[in-house]
Amino acid sequence: MNFFSERALSVVPYTAGEQPKDRRYIKLNTNENPYPPTPKLRELFSAFDPSALKYYPAPASDALRREIALCEGTETENVFCGNGSDEVLYLAFAAFFDRNRSACFADITYSFYEVFAKIHGVPYVTVPLDHDFRIDPEKLRAAQCAGYLIANPNAPTGVGIPLAEMEAFTASVPDKLVVADEAYMDFYGQSCVPLVRKYKNLLVVKTFSKSYSLAGIRCGYAIGDAALIDGLFRMKDCMNSYPVDSFCEAVCSVALQDREYHAETVRLVVSERERLRGSLLDLGFTVPESKANFLFAGKAKKSGGEIYRALKEEGVLVRYWDRPILRDFCRITVGTPEENRILIEKLKKILS
Amino acid sequence: MNFFSERALSVVPYTAGEQPKDRRYIKLNTNENPYPPTPKLRELFSAFDPSALKYYPAPASDALRREIALCEGTETENVFCGNGSDEVLYLAFAAFFDRNRSACFADITYSFYEVFAKIHGVPYVTVPLDHDFRIDPEKLRAAQCAGYLIANPNAPTGVGIPLAEMEAFTASVPDKLVVADEAYMDFYGQSCVPLVRKYKNLLVVKTFSKSYSLAGIRCGYAIGDAALIDGLFRMKDCMNSYPVDSFCEAVCSVALQDREYHAETVRLVVSERERLRGSLLDLGFTVPESKANFLFAGKAKKSGGEIYRALKEEGVLVRYWDRPILRDFCRITVGTPEENRILIEKLKKILS
Repeated sequence: MNFFSERALSVVPYTAGEQPKDRRYIKLNTNENPYPPTPKLRELFSAFDPSALKYYPAPASDALRREIALCEGTETENVFCGNGSDEVLYLAFAAFFDRNRSACFADITYSFYEVFAKIHGVPYVTVPLDHDFRIDPEKLRAAQCAGYLIANPNAPTGVGIPLAEMEAFTASVPDKLVVADEAYMDFYGQSCVPLVRKYKNLLVVKTFSKSYSLAGIRCGYAIGDAALIDGLFRMKDCMNSYPVDSFCEAVCSVALQDREYHAETVRLVVSERERLRGSLLDLGFTVPESKANFLFAGKAKKSGGEIYRALKEEGVLVRYWDRPILRDFCRITVGTPEENRILIEKLKKILS
Repeated sequence: MNFFSERALSVVPYTAGEQPKDRRYIKLNTNENPYPPTPKLRELFSAFDPSALKYYPAPASDALRREIALCEGTETENVFCGNGSDEVLYLAFAAFFDRNRSACFADITYSFYEVFAKIHGVPYVTVPLDHDFRIDPEKLRAAQCAGYLIANPNAPTGVGIPLAEMEAFTASVPDKLVVADEAYMDFYGQSCVPLVRKYKNLLVVKTFSKSYSLAGIRCGYAIGDAALIDGLFRMKDCMNSYPVDSFCEAVCSVALQDREYHAETVRLVVSERERLRGSLLDLGFTVPESKANFLFAGKAKKSGGEIYRALKEEGVLVRYWDRPILRDFCRITVGTPEENRILIEKLKKILS
């Protein structure tokens, strides 16, 4: 007997990067931050009373939303929190797109968008990147759709869209929703959050997984006009009343408050990114200028698949997709200086 | 401009019980456990290295699934973990029901089922409880549907279905899926989990929120045939690759291992439930025999709404629904002996 729904039979789920259990790899495949989260968390772990876990969390994560609002310069009513930014994006597809409200995104971008669209029965059009891997707003504007998903910086290319360009685009499509997926934005510094007050059609999605080094605690958020935030809450309340657990809420609040540590971690990753890009260019790789915490490197003497497999054998994990254009490249997360040094050493060996 | 999808415009979301922020109420409204989780958690909080949070969790929560399998007497491949049992139920609706695979559940049961069905476009039939609030398997069997949702013990009545009755029913509908929602089962001790090996059409859903006193950490799980578990994974991977965070996984593992504490907490709640039921009957309430950690009490001198409001004024929160049949009752979570003493004292005052 098969008990599967149409949906379960037809979907092609998203495949996340490998998460090896032994941890003996140098792990440059899932864009985790090489630096730990703020050391202030140690105090929270010591002070937190586990007895408090007998209660359900605050269903709207109000305390964390207030902290985020404070940090992002918005009001609490402009913030929505979810169990990772993937969940927030999933809910955004449910809230703002349907069979008559189609979506538009780049042909090379975060591959979860396609999965979200399919699972929600949302038709979508993809727009090709231009020759230097940039998203061209003119081409997006021409698409027939109810809204856009724009990863900025884009994944897996790392290429960014300057704030002025995002504003011009958002202003030019007032009747369409613009979802700016800013998972990696802290490594770029051109966030659209300040535009949210001005543009009712703009929803910015961010995460604690990358710049805050908290991929393991699962928290993401959206910033937008109160009406958009209300749409996300409506969908959340059809799925899970309490998506963000009480301890996660406390962890993210502590991380948000340590602005200095956050800024320093971001600075270290960005400076190491630039150094690593230089080394990869020296080895003959094509590497688009990245504004994220990873580099998209390819077209050296070997294919993406060959590089990926050879590095894995050498104990270094990077991300590889066997798809047109992508298969010429690997996506390499920026590691610590020592991890990057080993990566380059292994690549020299592989290419020689 | 309205950017809402059809879905967002039409849904009536589930409303969870109040979660007052001040905590000055005696909170008997959301079926939380009055006792704290295992004191062993204190050691975990001290020993856990926050640096580990920079990594994504294991996407399938393998370590926790192994612990659950061990505890439930199944294999790891028979276990699925999610961000609370509500999320697991949401995914079950997505995986096993669709417009051509309708669902069936009792007319008075966990009200989230209706919300899940609607959000997934699943037609559903409801079957009335019989006169003493029991779910009658004969009436369920007669329903035209692809599967059943059976809360056992049922919410908000607390009435349970004995294991033998559940087995006879499951065996009689081999082509239909039976989802046994056992959120409160540990307070009853008639779990269907041992039947999973024998019946490919049975999915049991459980939670850490109630008997483990971990509502705040958000974790639920399903036990079923590997094919059903695969269906849940397919849906999870269309929504969120990492629904269970790394720390939550560790917390639930520790809670599972402390069998003695769990048994003792359950014993305390059950004994207090029986004592409290006696007091409510003495006050003239109609109280169906409960197998859960709450009591469904009504038809005393005042309506459910009057009792609810009067208790709230007195600083005691209980759950009330302004709907046919339900409006005659309140659902009262079993508290600590002291909380229950105060409840009875306040009820005496209100009814006098």
